[in-house]
Amino acid sequence: MTSFTCYNPVKLVFGKGMIAELKDLIPPDLTVMLTYGGGSIKKNGVYDQVRAALADRTVVEFGGIEPNPRYETCMRAAELAKSEGVGFLLAVGGGSVLDATKFIAIAALYDAGDPWEIMEGRAPIEAAMPLGAVLTLPATGSEMNTNAVISRESTGEKLSFGSPHVYPQFSILDPETTYSLPERQTQNGIVDTFAHVMEQYMCGIGRAPLTERMAEAVLITLVEEAPKVKANPDDYEVRANLMWCATVGLNGWLGCGVAAQDWATHMIGHELTALYGIDHGRTLAVIMPAVHRHQLERKLPRLVQCAERVWGITQGEDKDRAAQAIDRMEAFFQSVGVPTRLSAYNVDADEAAPLVAERLARRGVKIGEYGDLGEQAVREIVMLAR
Amino acid sequence: MTSFTCYNPVKLVFGKGMIAELKDLIPPDLTVMLTYGGGSIKKNGVYDQVRAALADRTVVEFGGIEPNPRYETCMRAAELAKSEGVGFLLAVGGGSVLDATKFIAIAALYDAGDPWEIMEGRAPIEAAMPLGAVLTLPATGSEMNTNAVISRESTGEKLSFGSPHVYPQFSILDPETTYSLPERQTQNGIVDTFAHVMEQYMCGIGRAPLTERMAEAVLITLVEEAPKVKANPDDYEVRANLMWCATVGLNGWLGCGVAAQDWATHMIGHELTALYGIDHGRTLAVIMPAVHRHQLERKLPRLVQCAERVWGITQGEDKDRAAQAIDRMEAFFQSVGVPTRLSAYNVDADEAAPLVAERLARRGVKIGEYGDLGEQAVREIVMLAR
Repeated sequence: MTSFTCYNPVKLVFGKGMIAELKDLIPPDLTVMLTYGGGSIKKNGVYDQVRAALADRTVVEFGGIEPNPRYETCMRAAELAKSEGVGFLLAVGGGSVLDATKFIAIAALYDAGDPWEIMEGRAPIEAAMPLGAVLTLPATGSEMNTNAVISRESTGEKLSFGSPHVYPQFSILDPETTYSLPERQTQNGIVDTFAHVMEQYMCGIGRAPLTERMAEAVLITLVEEAPKVKANPDDYEVRANLMWCATVGLNGWLGCGVAAQDWATHMIGHELTALYGIDHGRTLAVIMPAVHRHQLERKLPRLVQCAERVWGITQGEDKDRAAQAIDRMEAFFQSVGVPTRLSAYNVDADEAAPLVAERLARRGVKIGEYGDLGEQAVREIVMLAR
Repeated sequence: MTSFTCYNPVKLVFGKGMIAELKDLIPPDLTVMLTYGGGSIKKNGVYDQVRAALADRTVVEFGGIEPNPRYETCMRAAELAKSEGVGFLLAVGGGSVLDATKFIAIAALYDAGDPWEIMEGRAPIEAAMPLGAVLTLPATGSEMNTNAVISRESTGEKLSFGSPHVYPQFSILDPETTYSLPERQTQNGIVDTFAHVMEQYMCGIGRAPLTERMAEAVLITLVEEAPKVKANPDDYEVRANLMWCATVGLNGWLGCGVAAQDWATHMIGHELTALYGIDHGRTLAVIMPAVHRHQLERKLPRLVQCAERVWGITQGEDKDRAAQAIDRMEAFFQSVGVPTRLSAYNVDADEAAPLVAERLARRGVKIGEYGDLGEQAVREIVMLAR
């Protein structure tokens, strides 16, 4: 096991009817800015529950945060927070709203220049406005971590940042709020969660036996629950299981003692979203099997372990088992309802491969668990996903 | 899944050489009280590492905290902390030192009467001195939770309490510090960890699929690692795995969404320690198989699940599989080197059974996952462990 620090002070409040707890979770004297997305919370009753819990507080609203939230939108929200004397940010929505709110929390207190400097790693994050969340879409894990991803329209960039300053003080997860999700978002959330777990687990370096088994626990649970939600989207237990998987999938627990992580899939996927507007979750379903096939030799022992423990494959040569494990993962994504090839999204791999590779190379990003996947390797991976 | 709150703000710092991090973890201006046990930390180099990290700080020492730490000892420490103007408590040792330090943290700030009132639940816990820990014995999970168990010599009582006020601000876990543990303490720690996990997992009520699999992850890892530590006590990876298992075993993660827990084994075990001085871990190895055999019908589905997933038992009728799972657990405890019957500790079950049952009944303690194990049931359980 590698040395690690495990620290996560988020208070996760999970269960039916828990939105009412908001009244005790936000300090009473602060002006609250409620951030949300396209307005689905006004149709599914979540908005009403939130406003009821906030009762007579001073509340400012900022709606319209888009999927793959944009820097430009966040900056408008930060200006509003400043001008209205907001003291607490309450994100109500999915990962996009949460990520945006994390950036708003920093930007609202950042006076040293353009907050985009933070996204580019050119300025340190020294403070953030306190924030909390009501999560309505299990996927990103943003409700219990320090990370966020923001896109900038003017440059076509999609960048991530992280800081302990943007841990939500609390996150409320009521599985009932996810009943009304469009099927597509449920699908994307399952794939996103699966990918997060894999990116911490599917590496060739080091061993962390307990943490690996915890990762397998999430993978197996996802494989078990995904078909059920398709058949019965209003099943509380199934929705609760998927929601809990998504949080554990990226709240830091699965990184404890792990020697290396491989976020190649997310990095390449972000470029596909930026270039072609493919849903984030769908880019992962396309790229992850390709990454694993490309890196099969280096990931062999863990792929074999995954084959046995997650997919029950116990026969054959190691390489054959590893290849089967990747095939099973790809088939799982498809069974969830997510196509796994670029062609299904009308993207020409011959065109996309050099574009994606060049964009990543230009930013000098280290890719893969060894940080050594260069332009050529990225091109090959994208071609494998054609 | 049952509704739950998951909140654990402890900063866990895990790995080789991490004691040096102390210098940044304790505010520089506070007088530190270093609490420890019988002095093994002075032989194995831990004390020297701690003092080196604390360098030129003002440090008060309080040694001599005993296993099953006593109220009387804690009260002396609390007086010393008050008279020396201590502002931060640093526990260096195992669960006993940590538990004692949690009580000292409360007692040092409690002026409303006798702090024992807190142990008896007659007074609320409203404040505690900040504390941190350097853990040298993986077992109790106290390094990352709110719980403590304290004994009172004058009354022969052993009581537990818990409060968010006594979360350690940090806990440093360096697996190397456990190389020099007496074999007996390593054994006890493995059994204690196994029991903690089982007491959260082995219940007949409700389902929490992901959390259950995470519990199984700890159980399987313990079963895998225990024989290795016996063969090679200086193997870093094995020691690290056991240490991480002990923390996850009782830091709250395995209780997330779980409908009921069954702490009957710990409650009955505490009485055996109080009455006969049997090591805490050993009482668990004696009582847990008896509890499971007594409650086999009610725990049947989970016992069958455990049989398959932890012990690989896939043949036979459900009841037979369940019985085999219990036999395998008892055999595991024995393989670790811990006898599982009262007779091995020279305790006469006929004498112990009514004594233990009466003591628990007198305190009106609710026992078992349904809280309905009365005097008769406790007597039967103790007799099953004869």
